[in-house]
Amino acid sequence: MTAKVMPDMQNARDERNIAIDRVGVRGVQYPIRLLDRHNEIQNSIGTFTLTVDLPQHFKGTHMSRFLEVLGEHDGVVSVQSIPLLLAELRNRLQSDESYLSVDFTYFMSKPAPVTGKPGLMGYECRFEAAGGAKTDMIVQLRIPVTTLCPCSKEISDYGAHNQRGYVTARFRSNDHIWIEEIIEVIESCASAPLYPLLKRPDEKYVTELAYNNPRFVEDMVREVALAFDAEPRITWYSLEVENHESIHSHNAYASIERSKS
Amino acid sequence: MTAKVMPDMQNARDERNIAIDRVGVRGVQYPIRLLDRHNEIQNSIGTFTLTVDLPQHFKGTHMSRFLEVLGEHDGVVSVQSIPLLLAELRNRLQSDESYLSVDFTYFMSKPAPVTGKPGLMGYECRFEAAGGAKTDMIVQLRIPVTTLCPCSKEISDYGAHNQRGYVTARFRSNDHIWIEEIIEVIESCASAPLYPLLKRPDEKYVTELAYNNPRFVEDMVREVALAFDAEPRITWYSLEVENHESIHSHNAYASIERSKS
Amino acid sequence: MTAKVMPDMQNARDERNIAIDRVGVRGVQYPIRLLDRHNEIQNSIGTFTLTVDLPQHFKGTHMSRFLEVLGEHDGVVSVQSIPLLLAELRNRLQSDESYLSVDFTYFMSKPAPVTGKPGLMGYECRFEAAGGAKTDMIVQLRIPVTTLCPCSKEISDYGAHNQRGYVTARFRSNDHIWIEEIIEVIESCASAPLYPLLKRPDEKYVTELAYNNPRFVEDMVREVALAFDAEPRITWYSLEVENHESIHSHNAYASIERSKS
Amino acid sequence: MTAKVMPDMQNARDERNIAIDRVGVRGVQYPIRLLDRHNEIQNSIGTFTLTVDLPQHFKGTHMSRFLEVLGEHDGVVSVQSIPLLLAELRNRLQSDESYLSVDFTYFMSKPAPVTGKPGLMGYECRFEAAGGAKTDMIVQLRIPVTTLCPCSKEISDYGAHNQRGYVTARFRSNDHIWIEEIIEVIESCASAPLYPLLKRPDEKYVTELAYNNPRFVEDMVREVALAFDAEPRITWYSLEVENHESIHSHNAYASIERSKS
Repeated sequence: MTAKVMPDMQNARDERNIAIDRVGVRGVQYPIRLLDRHNEIQNSIGTFTLTVDLPQHFKGTHMSRFLEVLGEHDGVVSVQSIPLLLAELRNRLQSDESYLSVDFTYFMSKPAPVTGKPGLMGYECRFEAAGGAKTDMIVQLRIPVTTLCPCSKEISDYGAHNQRGYVTARFRSNDHIWIEEIIEVIESCASAPLYPLLKRPDEKYVTELAYNNPRFVEDMVREVALAFDAEPRITWYSLEVENHESIHSHNAYASIERSKS
Repeated sequence: MTAKVMPDMQNARDERNIAIDRVGVRGVQYPIRLLDRHNEIQNSIGTFTLTVDLPQHFKGTHMSRFLEVLGEHDGVVSVQSIPLLLAELRNRLQSDESYLSVDFTYFMSKPAPVTGKPGLMGYECRFEAAGGAKTDMIVQLRIPVTTLCPCSKEISDYGAHNQRGYVTARFRSNDHIWIEEIIEVIESCASAPLYPLLKRPDEKYVTELAYNNPRFVEDMVREVALAFDAEPRITWYSLEVENHESIHSHNAYASIERSKS
Repeated sequence: MTAKVMPDMQNARDERNIAIDRVGVRGVQYPIRLLDRHNEIQNSIGTFTLTVDLPQHFKGTHMSRFLEVLGEHDGVVSVQSIPLLLAELRNRLQSDESYLSVDFTYFMSKPAPVTGKPGLMGYECRFEAAGGAKTDMIVQLRIPVTTLCPCSKEISDYGAHNQRGYVTARFRSNDHIWIEEIIEVIESCASAPLYPLLKRPDEKYVTELAYNNPRFVEDMVREVALAFDAEPRITWYSLEVENHESIHSHNAYASIERSKS
Repeated sequence: MTAKVMPDMQNARDERNIAIDRVGVRGVQYPIRLLDRHNEIQNSIGTFTLTVDLPQHFKGTHMSRFLEVLGEHDGVVSVQSIPLLLAELRNRLQSDESYLSVDFTYFMSKPAPVTGKPGLMGYECRFEAAGGAKTDMIVQLRIPVTTLCPCSKEISDYGAHNQRGYVTARFRSNDHIWIEEIIEVIESCASAPLYPLLKRPDEKYVTELAYNNPRFVEDMVREVALAFDAEPRITWYSLEVENHESIHSHNAYASIERSKS
């Protein structure tokens, strides 16, 4: 029995009269290349979800074609290449809409603040894109930061509890924004940024910087909201801040979502 | 310095003019009690997110009060008790809206299909509730099922690949629905249910049941959608099905979201 | 075909001449009950691994019997009940050795240090036990703590970075030790304990306590080692300390393993 | 205050008389390059733990130096480069022993078995190495496979339950072994390998292959043990097999550890 005479069950007619919003593959790992702010190629690994809509009269989609399209693509993940990949998905799956989500680690060079010692820091990123009848593109970044508690500083004779917090920012934009730009904006809203490598003069600097800039989760989420409000390229955003409280086993949390239009 | 004379920084005036959608605590573990379909108390452990809205003029919320409200609550998590807990949060945090999300494992007694041997199976559940200006309640269940591939069965001379799949169902309802009812509906849409304990006659039964009921992820999501469409108490639902394909390292995925009103 | 005439493949002779160290079931969720220091029953949920050795001449073990033994057991997890469960596993699986591992959350009541406000805090615990030819029992606890950096305090004009750290302690003992005792010992070695609920006077106390007791991961692991060395009931221990550094995206780590005999 | 006059607390004398087994950094993400069987460079991302022993008389280690050593290293992770990195760690940290663990995803090209359609599949790998007074190198691979239940096949009139299983193999060797060699050996012991891309003739082939080669977890672990016993370059191994049972919500598990010397 060859492929030609094998029944194509997916193409069979479905009588249940239910269209499926999204169908496809999830958790697909694939090597990717990204362009950074210095126009250099950065190698990473993408974890993809690739889906299409399925009209009510088809029994199933053809899962292997998603992998074929990904394999034929050149591995570059960019604002230019994603719409091409989405168009090819619609073409091969004969669908009206196609969706892509890709999670990856993005590295940024980050010198220590005083000694200038170089280091690389990895950030968790995600691109979510839709193509076809409606197009969409959301960038998601998860940025670790230092937050120092204003209340603890105020009421204590010395010291102040601080901790690692995580800002998860999602946004849509009307023009290109580098990942590095968003990282820098968010880190500037924190009590202090995190660094891959700090020598003692750097550690002194960061410790005092945080003490001079206390931030509740409420402050963090508002400062980032102010910065995103002031950035004309951002048209919509969703922010979540979560502090891994050094004095509690639970986390402090704050969120804001805003559409500018 | 006593609490009375300590500055209350959270009550300080905030000049940034930004209201916060949700602020509170996350990842709070607490023992809970649930009522099951047989009116018996089931002990479990809840992981809570508790939040309120924060008007623009306040610098911060009072995190410890969330824990106080949870601690004063009797630990019962039910359709009746959640609105009371949400009201108490609004009262103590002086907010207009309050939100609760609680993740827990729910056990259901499940006899083997032929021998009737008893067993307990745990299911991952979540309640998401809002109270105040707007009220809302979403129930989320994650049900593991067996799915057997119709294409593999059709084209192969013998056998058919099958695997564990997961149905994540979220729904709103206009009347009470037991968790057990939803579990049974979803499991009946699969190639076969999963069981905690199967003897050989049970294993033969389940193997043949799955072979007689092949299901793509597309079939699974449509069958559950049909069942939820036919259930008048459900007013909105969102369904995701994800097969941990036994022949692939990635997953097959399908989703449908529908509002009936 | 009834169970009696169904072939028992597991009992078939295996000719590969390879004994299996451990075979059984993993990831089994089951409600459990634990006795706490105040002789009160605490309800929790256990995630079990249950295994036995398999002699070289048997093709397989009988997986369903592990679930039967667990189901017939009364759900109590204690120093007294675990050997009984292990003995029943050996009996039903006709094995020389049997092993059990159970992960669970254990709650401890923990009043705030100044106001005395009550709160519950959950700790991740594990029991690992072996019975038969060799018997063994290891208790594992993962305790979150506050650690404040001595270097940061020393070199900075004000403040000091601190963070949530995790102490994972594993130990064998020659006599009963309450989980609560170990939690209290480990927390007393930290810059400060974590609390479920702190009012402002408590927060001031904890902040200053941590500032007065700076601890590297090296200090933490040594202080706990000293305490465990001084505890005659502990005969062997393994300690890991991991700081979720508030100034770095990576963690600081230290470990010590010691046998006293 | 410059670095020169800042106190070096880590170098302070410690009077507690406790040497620390391992101290350093954990969860450090860094881009790496690996050489594959075809002598081609493969880009990946490593998650590192880097540690050294700390004599009893030193208060602490110098965490930033671990990052400096990693940053000065050329990013190549290989049997040749790891001992150099470990030696540099001992040199810079003035320690007797140094340890490295690095987790990464390794991609292997894998054509479909009948159509030959190309695809890439990612595998989770880890290298654990020690240098100094004692040297050691363990390779760990986690290989997903298809397992089809021999009992289910035997007792059922048609079909047989099968699922994704995971083989975690750890081994020491006395000569170089390519990761690809181990992957191929382990996959040949399964009911069938997993593939990134299968067209219908491939799916028919894999379905029937699995039905013709039923394997319990006991069979899987024994078949791999036989293959590792027959491989003279492997001197020690530890094997764990875990089936994500398609008919149960828990997993079936088997393990073997053997030293040949």
